[in-house]
Amino acid sequence: MAVLLSTKATTMQAWRDALLAVDPSLEIRLFPDAGDPADIEAAVVWTSHDMAELRRYPKLRLIVSMGAGVDHLLRPPGPPPGIPVARLVDRMLTTQMGEWVLLNVLRFHRQDPDYRAQQRDKVWLELDAPVTAQRRIGIMGFGELGTHAAGPLRTLGFPVMGWTRRPRDVPGVETFHGEDGLHAMAARSDILVCLLPLTSATRGIVSASLLARLPGGAFLINGARGGHVVDADLLAALDSGHVAGAALDVFEPEPLPADHRYWSHPKVVMTPHAASITIPSSAAPQVVENLQRARASRPLLNLVDFSAGY
Amino acid sequence: MAVLLSTKATTMQAWRDALLAVDPSLEIRLFPDAGDPADIEAAVVWTSHDMAELRRYPKLRLIVSMGAGVDHLLRPPGPPPGIPVARLVDRMLTTQMGEWVLLNVLRFHRQDPDYRAQQRDKVWLELDAPVTAQRRIGIMGFGELGTHAAGPLRTLGFPVMGWTRRPRDVPGVETFHGEDGLHAMAARSDILVCLLPLTSATRGIVSASLLARLPGGAFLINGARGGHVVDADLLAALDSGHVAGAALDVFEPEPLPADHRYWSHPKVVMTPHAASITIPSSAAPQVVENLQRARASRPLLNLVDFSAGY
Repeated sequence: MAVLLSTKATTMQAWRDALLAVDPSLEIRLFPDAGDPADIEAAVVWTSHDMAELRRYPKLRLIVSMGAGVDHLLRPPGPPPGIPVARLVDRMLTTQMGEWVLLNVLRFHRQDPDYRAQQRDKVWLELDAPVTAQRRIGIMGFGELGTHAAGPLRTLGFPVMGWTRRPRDVPGVETFHGEDGLHAMAARSDILVCLLPLTSATRGIVSASLLARLPGGAFLINGARGGHVVDADLLAALDSGHVAGAALDVFEPEPLPADHRYWSHPKVVMTPHAASITIPSSAAPQVVENLQRARASRPLLNLVDFSAGY
Repeated sequence: MAVLLSTKATTMQAWRDALLAVDPSLEIRLFPDAGDPADIEAAVVWTSHDMAELRRYPKLRLIVSMGAGVDHLLRPPGPPPGIPVARLVDRMLTTQMGEWVLLNVLRFHRQDPDYRAQQRDKVWLELDAPVTAQRRIGIMGFGELGTHAAGPLRTLGFPVMGWTRRPRDVPGVETFHGEDGLHAMAARSDILVCLLPLTSATRGIVSASLLARLPGGAFLINGARGGHVVDADLLAALDSGHVAGAALDVFEPEPLPADHRYWSHPKVVMTPHAASITIPSSAAPQVVENLQRARASRPLLNLVDFSAGY
């Protein structure tokens, strides 16, 4: 069984080494040097890989996507029909996203943008003490990432709410579902956090209509996908002051074009899709486990649910 | 029993209201309108209050300091001899300091200063993923504040070490004591956090000698007192690159003079002694409890240990 590996050039060797460290018997071919297409039984691919290209391999029986999100795989033409696609459910990815959300919640809660401006202007001024129990956090998407992000926020004493597509009970978290539920949660979210999968139902969900329901001076944190946010609507809400700040890790397109207003907007804190970075040594064991399961025709782990879109 | 209240002008009314909300029978005199000095049996005072002035009140039997630190009370001339001094041990103060430490640990851990610079320069570049389990946090001072700050850091997976004056066991935390212990901890601290009380033994403890023991590229977080840090030594370590960044909330003197290099140093993140702000409504109950105990000659809470200096 040969495995086709296709990732960013900068991480190709690290991925090969990490996979071989778990299973030295793997035969790994580095894209585009696939050799005989009939040798390839599995493809481990990054977001940039062309799904049409994967139709070249007649014996392909597993695609592993090297990230938590899979929306890029679902765009036309999509993966070859009938081939199972697994995504990474990596504790390190979940941990990193939780840290990134926590950093940005604390940044806004503790008035850090104001204090950065005061330092720049050499202003010594103590602002009103923020009260954690009064800073309500609304999390859109309460799967693996949202649930994990909520943990430390709750421990610190923030009131945490969660919104999901289907009704769901989460101990200690007030949950909402459906469009009415989203509107109700937004109306009480001093900080709104988006960790949704990107599907046709969630594209553009952070729109003028949703932002208008936030309390005045609320903050937005988006660690999901750029496509969730209607950029013009967010910029308008930031410019009007209704939204006091936004922390954004994801954009459409990426990299964000150099002339986009987000780069220089004083109320926007950007990271370059770096909230959660796959670490090959952490993710390799589950990739190898799925390769071995595919070889043995055993049930695969973390399969993408194409009907749900995640 | 009349209570003399002396705080910053901006918070005087809030303090009076908060104390009266707990005990409407209190007779509160707002400094400098103390009335007959012989009426004053307790003084609730902020750091700026002149201790010599408190010698005017012949029947004074309790001083309450409106903050967690008490070093300002211990400077000559000090409080009137024989008068007990209580400090605030307020859950809200502890909580706020824990948040401030956590914000700054995450800021440095997640390369936020680098990403802020990249945004300013419109550079889209994913940096190496930081690994929480490899970012060792050393906390100087493991009392109320240090213990609390360690909690969420441990939960997130940071290895946490603690240094105390006397030997001390803390579950889940590697502890150190004495000068050798401090040097040993510093040598392994990727982020060094100072939450010590300021005493003659800790003044200037963050010196060139201690900073030199940190791993190259380490970070410093000081939420304790400006007097702990030898400013010239820290600036030299930042300029040389040995210390990669510092988050400072406290300075000597305060406010920090406008011409101090910290204000504009690219590796310094400043807050104006705002990490932990006393909220009158949160602190008032324990102040009133101590006033009532003093009146009834019952044992007082949270007394300052003058021999230890905190």
